[in-house]
Amino acid sequence: MNRTFTMTRRVAFNETDMAGVMHFSNFLRWLEDAEHAFFRSLGLSIESESDGRRISWPRVSVNCDFSGSARFQDELEIRLAVVRVGRKSVSFQGDFVLNGRTVAVGRSTSVCCVVLPDRFESIEIPAEVRRKLEAST
Amino acid sequence: MNRTFTMTRRVAFNETDMAGVMHFSNFLRWLEDAEHAFFRSLGLSIESESDGRRISWPRVSVNCDFSGSARFQDELEIRLAVVRVGRKSVSFQGDFVLNGRTVAVGRSTSVCCVVLPDRFESIEIPAEVRRKLEAST
Amino acid sequence: MNRTFTMTRRVAFNETDMAGVMHFSNFLRWLEDAEHAFFRSLGLSIESESDGRRISWPRVSVNCDFSGSARFQDELEIRLAVVRVGRKSVSFQGDFVLNGRTVAVGRSTSVCCVVLPDRFESIEIPAEVRRKLEAST
Amino acid sequence: MNRTFTMTRRVAFNETDMAGVMHFSNFLRWLEDAEHAFFRSLGLSIESESDGRRISWPRVSVNCDFSGSARFQDELEIRLAVVRVGRKSVSFQGDFVLNGRTVAVGRSTSVCCVVLPDRFESIEIPAEVRRKLEAST
Repeated sequence: MNRTFTMTRRVAFNETDMAGVMHFSNFLRWLEDAEHAFFRSLGLSIESESDGRRISWPRVSVNCDFSGSARFQDELEIRLAVVRVGRKSVSFQGDFVLNGRTVAVGRSTSVCCVVLPDRFESIEIPAEVRRKLEAST
Repeated sequence: MNRTFTMTRRVAFNETDMAGVMHFSNFLRWLEDAEHAFFRSLGLSIESESDGRRISWPRVSVNCDFSGSARFQDELEIRLAVVRVGRKSVSFQGDFVLNGRTVAVGRSTSVCCVVLPDRFESIEIPAEVRRKLEAST
Repeated sequence: MNRTFTMTRRVAFNETDMAGVMHFSNFLRWLEDAEHAFFRSLGLSIESESDGRRISWPRVSVNCDFSGSARFQDELEIRLAVVRVGRKSVSFQGDFVLNGRTVAVGRSTSVCCVVLPDRFESIEIPAEVRRKLEAST
Repeated sequence: MNRTFTMTRRVAFNETDMAGVMHFSNFLRWLEDAEHAFFRSLGLSIESESDGRRISWPRVSVNCDFSGSARFQDELEIRLAVVRVGRKSVSFQGDFVLNGRTVAVGRSTSVCCVVLPDRFESIEIPAEVRRKLEAST
């Protein structure tokens, strides 16, 4: 799998819990942040306007497997890869690496949607976005 | 000071930090939640529509003093009081009580605003909201 | 599948994001909170001492599928079930139901561990805990 | 006031709320993160061991005034200053600047403490830490 994008990040105090490690939910927040940084690196934004419509990418599924943990001030590398570009959706995998060892692997699938007042309506991924995502696969 | 509203709440695991206690920022989140529950108890909502305009109440200041701490699964009482109703703003105080002892006191001032696409514009508190808030002071 | 435990909970303002809905990560935090409430309902705690050792239950995997969303002040029902009790691990499923419609389904697997200064060491689930968990399956 | 330390940071999606701006509580989390980065820049850690005792710095008070807001992907500058070094406590101020305009000012006072199993016990700031903090005032 092609490594699309890598970022490093340090565990904040407020991200730890009483077990002394980063709370599991923050790995999934970091995965989302890495996806957004990747979009920015392509000159895209996960939140945009197109033809006067507001476009967003809500998730339809996420998962994360943990084989280790991260502690306050640990600096992790997040290695993000585009796993699949569908007609309306994109799937990512993020490996969380601490001192050369993978401590967690997260995955997500998000769907390109128009934001309506009371719901999200899925649409095909705009051509320019698709082209850039596929070039990274 | 009149005690306007009381709620109880238990500290969640994800609200603790590596020091073994509730992270300080969550006291301010709980204060906000108590304000919103108080609004609901008056038949109001902190997010509403009025004459087709979206109304919200962003904060202009918050503070919190800590004299103790709260741990996982501790059940705290939050005693909320309306401290002041201004022309455009409302100020609250929330006392956080654990086993009869006050562990933190938070305060907030929020301003009634119309939500515009790129900013908040302050407005006078609608008459019905004012009447209900003042009745609680 | 036997429905082990049900709780209701209202979406807080700080749990929403700019898309106007509860941030996806909070469904997984709510699942954890429901598991902890279920443990309490059995007279157990997810954080405990046994023979002078500190016991905790770190997660080895989580996942969540989203078929809808939840908005500020929505009240959701979380229907928690014990899916499997292993020798050292327990798996849960939580269905998030809003107005009779399932908007998300989360799953988790946690491993019973002794908390050591620098790591977690898995152990067999203590007999009393196992008995109570299996009685709920 | 001497500007001790500056860092920049971008607003994450999960830090926004349904009003479309960064949730107020995250400014106080960012202030804490800036303090910790400042400690690291001095070769110190906010969590440390001294003579076999675990040292931490719980807050006794925080406050924040808001004169603007920050949106998803905005990059803010946090200008941190040591305001006062007491016998046992240290006070910080953090100015949050977006495109040259201050949108929030936060302040905190933390007390140097030994972490005991059931409480925090305040102690005098260790000499080396004091020396480094005072050099930054």
